[in-house]
Amino acid sequence: MYREKIKILDCTVRDGGLINKHDFDHRFVREVYKACAKAGLDYMEIGYKNSKELFSSEEYGAWKFCEDDVIRKVIDGIESNTKISVMVDVGRVNLDDIVLASDSPVDMIRTAAYVKDIDKAIHMVNHFADKGYEATINIMAISRDRGTELDEALQQIEEESKATVVYIVDSFGALYQESVEELVKRFKSHLKTKEIGFHGHNPQQLAYGNTIEAIIHDANYMDATVFGIGRGAGNCPLELLIGFLKNPKFDIRPILDLISNEFIPLRNEIEWGYIIPYAIAGMLNEHPRGAMALRASENRENYRDFYESLTDVA
Amino acid sequence: MYREKIKILDCTVRDGGLINKHDFDHRFVREVYKACAKAGLDYMEIGYKNSKELFSSEEYGAWKFCEDDVIRKVIDGIESNTKISVMVDVGRVNLDDIVLASDSPVDMIRTAAYVKDIDKAIHMVNHFADKGYEATINIMAISRDRGTELDEALQQIEEESKATVVYIVDSFGALYQESVEELVKRFKSHLKTKEIGFHGHNPQQLAYGNTIEAIIHDANYMDATVFGIGRGAGNCPLELLIGFLKNPKFDIRPILDLISNEFIPLRNEIEWGYIIPYAIAGMLNEHPRGAMALRASENRENYRDFYESLTDVA
Repeated sequence: MYREKIKILDCTVRDGGLINKHDFDHRFVREVYKACAKAGLDYMEIGYKNSKELFSSEEYGAWKFCEDDVIRKVIDGIESNTKISVMVDVGRVNLDDIVLASDSPVDMIRTAAYVKDIDKAIHMVNHFADKGYEATINIMAISRDRGTELDEALQQIEEESKATVVYIVDSFGALYQESVEELVKRFKSHLKTKEIGFHGHNPQQLAYGNTIEAIIHDANYMDATVFGIGRGAGNCPLELLIGFLKNPKFDIRPILDLISNEFIPLRNEIEWGYIIPYAIAGMLNEHPRGAMALRASENRENYRDFYESLTDVA
Repeated sequence: MYREKIKILDCTVRDGGLINKHDFDHRFVREVYKACAKAGLDYMEIGYKNSKELFSSEEYGAWKFCEDDVIRKVIDGIESNTKISVMVDVGRVNLDDIVLASDSPVDMIRTAAYVKDIDKAIHMVNHFADKGYEATINIMAISRDRGTELDEALQQIEEESKATVVYIVDSFGALYQESVEELVKRFKSHLKTKEIGFHGHNPQQLAYGNTIEAIIHDANYMDATVFGIGRGAGNCPLELLIGFLKNPKFDIRPILDLISNEFIPLRNEIEWGYIIPYAIAGMLNEHPRGAMALRASENRENYRDFYESLTDVA
């Protein structure tokens, strides 16, 4: 599939940070950025921009806050056309902390929001756009919000927001390719002036297949992570996505090196991938938090009880 | 997706046996059969029926040969509606060894063949059908054989063979969902009197997504393995497929127990799953044998050299 307009955003450090409280060391993040740059990726999302008034920097690592100076230190001296993205959650960022884009190493700010929070998200996105950032809205947990409230939200985004991209976020990894097709078409029917993005999750091993499905139906902004790292089962593996896209601007080899050198050792320390409790949560359209709790308990391989606890209709 | 005609065939012991020379012990195979029966699966494929004149029973385990008496021992006393299948390769079975179906515990014989061997496969399939077995043709390595030779083979199967099911086998795990759609439609256009089956491989994490794609386009015979076990990256995970099919005759819980009790320990002994060299082979439409050799060497995590060796155009 070659389509010049397709952009890849690597969110390895941002989504992977959900496993380890955003506590990757600077050397590691620098290695990821180097590889993204050499691979020719369009964006790298480096973490969340959360207010330090809401979260303790004792408890969380640097990539929970993404202070501009810290970002600068990590990317300094690396030749790169890869833009830097950060994510914000509704209600967790102090808008006054955001300087003008021209004074920041950040190029893009992505606002993650549930459908119910679209008003607040639009307000934030417009604030970021006015400060000169590329600004997007990422609609989370979409597998649970597919009623008319979604159409209304999309229409409102089209009419009122300065977002350039609107993402379908399959937070629970519950979508099948038929639902992805339906959603991309629905997004496009409302969002005549925006690009469509897709962010998959992998509990059912469908993140990559669903990403391809979104591409087939003309979504152009694709999220992926190195070796599929991410909370729970993880995300669409970046190396597979590069293998699918035949765009000569991408080079898979720096990503292969990064996996050999950094991610094979890392996976001995933190867990992600195809793990049955996450698969169960995905097929039942549930948040992975129950599965995460199970994996942290002594019943981590007791799948039947977990399944029955989620399907008990009594 | 609820469609009564959809049949699941578990090929855990057959495809998994390619990792360990078909040397699963009888207790393990009996546990798999019990779980398949309790889960309500339609078929379980228990191994290959190879001639002992061609392969040494010193070197290979029982499931390389699948002698009727051995099968009987393993399934004896288990209440079950799950039929037994065995696979045969062209040129590796002595047709005289096959007794009448009425005298055998085997219900179905599946003949695996490349397009170039379709004549021989049809001869074998008709022989098995005449002896009273359900008989299928499984067309291997289809991602490399999509020219007019495939149409000719399919037409010949339709006109000359007694196969009831013809399978698309994505041996290299190289198909994307668009190719699956195209192939299922092409199979159906020739095979007016046969059912279509799909057997995926998982180097690119697409086995399950492609299986769904085949179902969407009206293929009815689906292969899967417990926890995705199989040579290289493995196969479509059975537990995910059951989660997708809403047919109340299937129960996922015995399969979850089987994974907890047998497959989590087993994976510490033998390797399968998402492993980068298999992903590289899949995206380049290559047989996994090069990746298997790499994994058995001391360069097992050196992905760049492997990638470059496969893409070197010099």
